[in-house]
Amino acid sequence: MRIALDAMGGDFAPQINVQGAIDALCANLDLEVQLVGDAGDLERRLAETGYSGERLSIVPADGFVGMEEKPTEALRKKPRSSIAVCWKLMATREVDAIVSAGNTGGVVAAGLWSRLFLKGVKRPGIAVVLPTLTGRTVLMDVGANPDAKPEHLYQYAVMAQIYSREMLGISHPRVGLMNIGSEDGKGNELVRGTHQMLSKSPYKMDYVGNVEGRGLYLGEADVVICEGFVGNVVLKVSEGMASMFMRRIPDAILKSLHSEKHLAAAAFENLAHSYEYNETGGAPLLGIDGVCIICHGSSDARSIANALQGAAALHKRNVNAQIADALALSE
Amino acid sequence: MRIALDAMGGDFAPQINVQGAIDALCANLDLEVQLVGDAGDLERRLAETGYSGERLSIVPADGFVGMEEKPTEALRKKPRSSIAVCWKLMATREVDAIVSAGNTGGVVAAGLWSRLFLKGVKRPGIAVVLPTLTGRTVLMDVGANPDAKPEHLYQYAVMAQIYSREMLGISHPRVGLMNIGSEDGKGNELVRGTHQMLSKSPYKMDYVGNVEGRGLYLGEADVVICEGFVGNVVLKVSEGMASMFMRRIPDAILKSLHSEKHLAAAAFENLAHSYEYNETGGAPLLGIDGVCIICHGSSDARSIANALQGAAALHKRNVNAQIADALALSE
Repeated sequence: MRIALDAMGGDFAPQINVQGAIDALCANLDLEVQLVGDAGDLERRLAETGYSGERLSIVPADGFVGMEEKPTEALRKKPRSSIAVCWKLMATREVDAIVSAGNTGGVVAAGLWSRLFLKGVKRPGIAVVLPTLTGRTVLMDVGANPDAKPEHLYQYAVMAQIYSREMLGISHPRVGLMNIGSEDGKGNELVRGTHQMLSKSPYKMDYVGNVEGRGLYLGEADVVICEGFVGNVVLKVSEGMASMFMRRIPDAILKSLHSEKHLAAAAFENLAHSYEYNETGGAPLLGIDGVCIICHGSSDARSIANALQGAAALHKRNVNAQIADALALSE
Repeated sequence: MRIALDAMGGDFAPQINVQGAIDALCANLDLEVQLVGDAGDLERRLAETGYSGERLSIVPADGFVGMEEKPTEALRKKPRSSIAVCWKLMATREVDAIVSAGNTGGVVAAGLWSRLFLKGVKRPGIAVVLPTLTGRTVLMDVGANPDAKPEHLYQYAVMAQIYSREMLGISHPRVGLMNIGSEDGKGNELVRGTHQMLSKSPYKMDYVGNVEGRGLYLGEADVVICEGFVGNVVLKVSEGMASMFMRRIPDAILKSLHSEKHLAAAAFENLAHSYEYNETGGAPLLGIDGVCIICHGSSDARSIANALQGAAALHKRNVNAQIADALALSE
């Protein structure tokens, strides 16, 4: 299992990527990682770590897509940027997967340019796993496709259901459609069209219909489908709200306590960790002929190591072959 | 100041509406409330309370739009339903405002049918006030208009800014556009078009540009504009997440404590109250020639009383006249 890691991606690159790669290689002996980026810098950093395993190599790239750059412009100007080289390695089958904590728009745009779509897939989409009151729910798409059509959302339902089953171990994931009401006929043209398609599809048994925003975190479905604009807003509003709560709530509670303040403070800290992105293995861009895992820009080494392991698991569970089969059957 | 209260609206109607009206009348001597609904039932309930002030009267209606009914169908079948009668009372200037905790789609649809739009307004929208890390932010529209165009979002910016200034006391509210990236050129056609309009408008000084989902709860703008589908999902996802946190966090923290468990439990209870909808005065449907306040379906008497007071404040602060003037200037 060979993975190209965009060593220049993320707020703390390249150091956390070098460390994350080493951590993953130590934990998983089947992995080979290619660090893609500024070869001189990477060699120096690698030497400093003292790591000399042969499963880690360096692939040179020229520059990278910055977090604030416009993806398409940056990719045009820097055709040998780290993320572009990662995709080329996957297109030529030199690697099985790529992982990046860089500019999400850049990762997706480079992927769309490579046209490395899985057979039958109309548009790839990004899936994320969110914690809910009752377990975990996959939300898709969170921003790869801002111009979705019903047939795209339908395919997201197929892809995310397989992802939920294989990666979260839910045997019959219930699929819901994010909407602004629970009754039939609610919402805009896009969701009404998608509702029609899902209601008549081979997946209708697992389709629980419209899910309102409230139902997402209450766990009303194991998979919730939406278009990229809505999904991205939901994901980031959730981040912002969690961040607000994790500052406001401890303040209010700790000042009510005296001798046991330290116990509550420690419990809050544990809780905050459990909601951190670093614990999750990144978000897959599903619908690609290969594996692409997108990590949060603020990823640390543990997060990168988890994402590399997640990429390996996705590959091993044959998620792509199952998606291609399911799409062929449901055409 | 005369208000029609949809006595049949809400999960706990009509009892909480009767009680909420009496509470508001006791608190505000300038108010007159007309309870609209099943006259026999309302008379009986009113008699039970022992209240006999002349500022409270009953206006009969036939039936109501249920929480699970399709609004337009229900309104067609029940032209004398409580919410339809409320709007008629406002259209004939028998009341200055209406308040309802009923089916939101029903309240909005009946309003659109009445065509009681404020001069210059293309489409009314619902504004809500959300707590943020730094204060309070107005989010608009949260579901009145599922087919928004840039000129609608532009008008929402104008209306919500005036609302924020007059009702929250923010002297120069910063206006942001909900988007999936902070750079120019991000997002779909609707937000790009709106960004163009706002950047060139008389409001450009107060326009802070794109705000990502994360920025909403971090208080990056005092007013955040979006189309109704996105806004409704954001509002309800927030409700669901808050509900999850308010169950998960106390569980985790309380079990870490011993002798001071009761102190933390009391602090959590206070905190939960501060995030409750019942504390806020409902959400205005802005852009109406009159005042329409929409309450959460789960409203209690205090929430209804607050909404009646909020309607009175909105009327008193001449928010509508200011909106009409601002729209005339910005044409």
